Amino acid sequence: MKKYNFYAGPAILPDPVIKEAAEAVNEFAGTGLSILELSHRSKEIVAMMDEAEQHVYDLLDIDKDSYSILFLTGGASSQFFMTAINVLDKDAKAAYIDTGSWSTKAIKEAKHFGEVEVVASSKNRNYCYIPKSYTIPEDVTYVHYTSNNTIFGTEFHQLPETSIPLVSDMSSNIFSRPMDVSRHAILYAGAQKNLGPAGVTMVIVRNDILGKVNRAIPTMLNYQTHITKKSSFNTPPVFPIYVSMLTMRWLKANGGVSAMEKKNIEKANILYNEIDRNPLFYGTADNEDRSRMNVCFLARDEAHEAPFLEMCLEAGCMGVKGHRSVGGFRASIYNAMSMEGVQILVDVMKELERIHG
Amino acid sequence: MKKYNFYAGPAILPDPVIKEAAEAVNEFAGTGLSILELSHRSKEIVAMMDEAEQHVYDLLDIDKDSYSILFLTGGASSQFFMTAINVLDKDAKAAYIDTGSWSTKAIKEAKHFGEVEVVASSKNRNYCYIPKSYTIPEDVTYVHYTSNNTIFGTEFHQLPETSIPLVSDMSSNIFSRPMDVSRHAILYAGAQKNLGPAGVTMVIVRNDILGKVNRAIPTMLNYQTHITKKSSFNTPPVFPIYVSMLTMRWLKANGGVSAMEKKNIEKANILYNEIDRNPLFYGTADNEDRSRMNVCFLARDEAHEAPFLEMCLEAGCMGVKGHRSVGGFRASIYNAMSMEGVQILVDVMKELERIHG
Repeated sequence: MKKYNFYAGPAILPDPVIKEAAEAVNEFAGTGLSILELSHRSKEIVAMMDEAEQHVYDLLDIDKDSYSILFLTGGASSQFFMTAINVLDKDAKAAYIDTGSWSTKAIKEAKHFGEVEVVASSKNRNYCYIPKSYTIPEDVTYVHYTSNNTIFGTEFHQLPETSIPLVSDMSSNIFSRPMDVSRHAILYAGAQKNLGPAGVTMVIVRNDILGKVNRAIPTMLNYQTHITKKSSFNTPPVFPIYVSMLTMRWLKANGGVSAMEKKNIEKANILYNEIDRNPLFYGTADNEDRSRMNVCFLARDEAHEAPFLEMCLEAGCMGVKGHRSVGGFRASIYNAMSMEGVQILVDVMKELERIHG
Repeated sequence: MKKYNFYAGPAILPDPVIKEAAEAVNEFAGTGLSILELSHRSKEIVAMMDEAEQHVYDLLDIDKDSYSILFLTGGASSQFFMTAINVLDKDAKAAYIDTGSWSTKAIKEAKHFGEVEVVASSKNRNYCYIPKSYTIPEDVTYVHYTSNNTIFGTEFHQLPETSIPLVSDMSSNIFSRPMDVSRHAILYAGAQKNLGPAGVTMVIVRNDILGKVNRAIPTMLNYQTHITKKSSFNTPPVFPIYVSMLTMRWLKANGGVSAMEKKNIEKANILYNEIDRNPLFYGTADNEDRSRMNVCFLARDEAHEAPFLEMCLEAGCMGVKGHRSVGGFRASIYNAMSMEGVQILVDVMKELERIHG
């Protein structure tokens, strides 16, 4: 039976990407060897990494002279402190917008290296919205925000209003829509949602923000190390980068991020419309801040929870159970999720209504 | 044509491991999904990671109550500072044995966090031997050594003589022989030589050495975080861990580390015997310290270098070119390298002698 992958992350990847990745594990680029056992200094792997980098520049329309693209490890969780250790001086201050668990962790880690001011938070209503009116002090080094909140199903549909450089955790909506990179000092994203498998973290850094903090940084934590060595100071996570490169190739072949945005709006509308229509369900996020990637909803009657999840599994819909912080259900509908998959889930919702409504 | 992979790392993996890894990319454990798109919280991935951990305990005969097994990222290069940040206090001292490029980097990074005393070095003869007589001060927290030196082709065949806890970078000879883990506080190894593909770093930590330094450690850099959360505080590099788990299964099925040691001694002997016999070549490392993993040798006549490398490629032997720090040739013959592969390389050496001798 065909399975529809609604996991929040690691998450769905395009079928052709999975097929080509499996082939490369058997043999890569006519070398007679698996991609898993090829040196990162071999010309085949160097070319592959160059291609991955170029795809990022192209897909997000990034100025190549001003920004560097890094493929690191450690997840967004490591970027929480790496952003700060690299650009936030000990006596300097950064502004953070708190929109949920991941923002909260980012705030905690940045405090190791400088002062943090939380300028806005949606904690008062369990992070079900994106804060709108707040004041950002003039003297902060950067403003950090989490562009999409996987757990609470909210998303920034406008950038924070400020002329101060932005730093963003874009793990769960990178490449799902056009992004104005030029407003950012740093963008980072764990791959395992819209980009690739677990094991690689993409970081986009504006070169001129580096080298300004007054501290010694361990070599591996210093962005400059990885810029200078093109992400190969040490052995990079070759296979996760390769699968990400294939996903970006697929993105380009399918119209790039503008086409993805159009399709993602359509998919999200289908699902949210059913949530709003179906008397058995309701959405958890404020309408205007609803995420196009992670659709969180609850059953009005808790007794319907278990049967609905059971029916989802029977229909091949996997990973629909909600995060414990919100409960209920979460359907993650990243770029690779088809309209068909969303429709199947909607059909299950209608079927629940027919039986229990 | 069959290829023989002599790359230093990423390096050769067992054929059945590659085959099974490719299958899991297509579909894993009957889930109907690729291993690349399965949640790390799914029962299938949790079971896989538990199995990986158990294999490490079994293969190295490790006391489960005293040591934790971690699957992290960032390579041995990140462990250079993570070992120090976790266990070396600001006013404390650690002893380091300098046996080459990787030791030198470990020394540099540890200095960010405490005092480092280099108690022995083989730099005076371009790291072609393992230092033997040196004094280790009584007051150091640990003694760090690089158990095998990939670049210079040397290996510790005895542990440093001391009662002080050892810390070891075992990236290039882990699982190639039995190891007395109980003498160590920390062992770490980038996977991409004897363990798996690039993208995961194994760390074995003795639990009681933690929690003794007087500094705040960012969450992701703190070993305790990963011990408590069983390497899943954040999304772990699922696929690299899976391939490592398969390699460890293969190791067990093939007699474990004692059987590997026997085979590795045999392979190394065949190759070193030919280097010593063949008038066109000579080895670079002192005989008693020769590595069983990375066999470094030079042509007596530089004019033979290019033709030999050409003949290697024609015979399917890949990655034989030496590291620039030593020059000449390096044949990495990790666990997965067959006797047949070594024999083919020896045949090429004999053929060079026949033509140019």
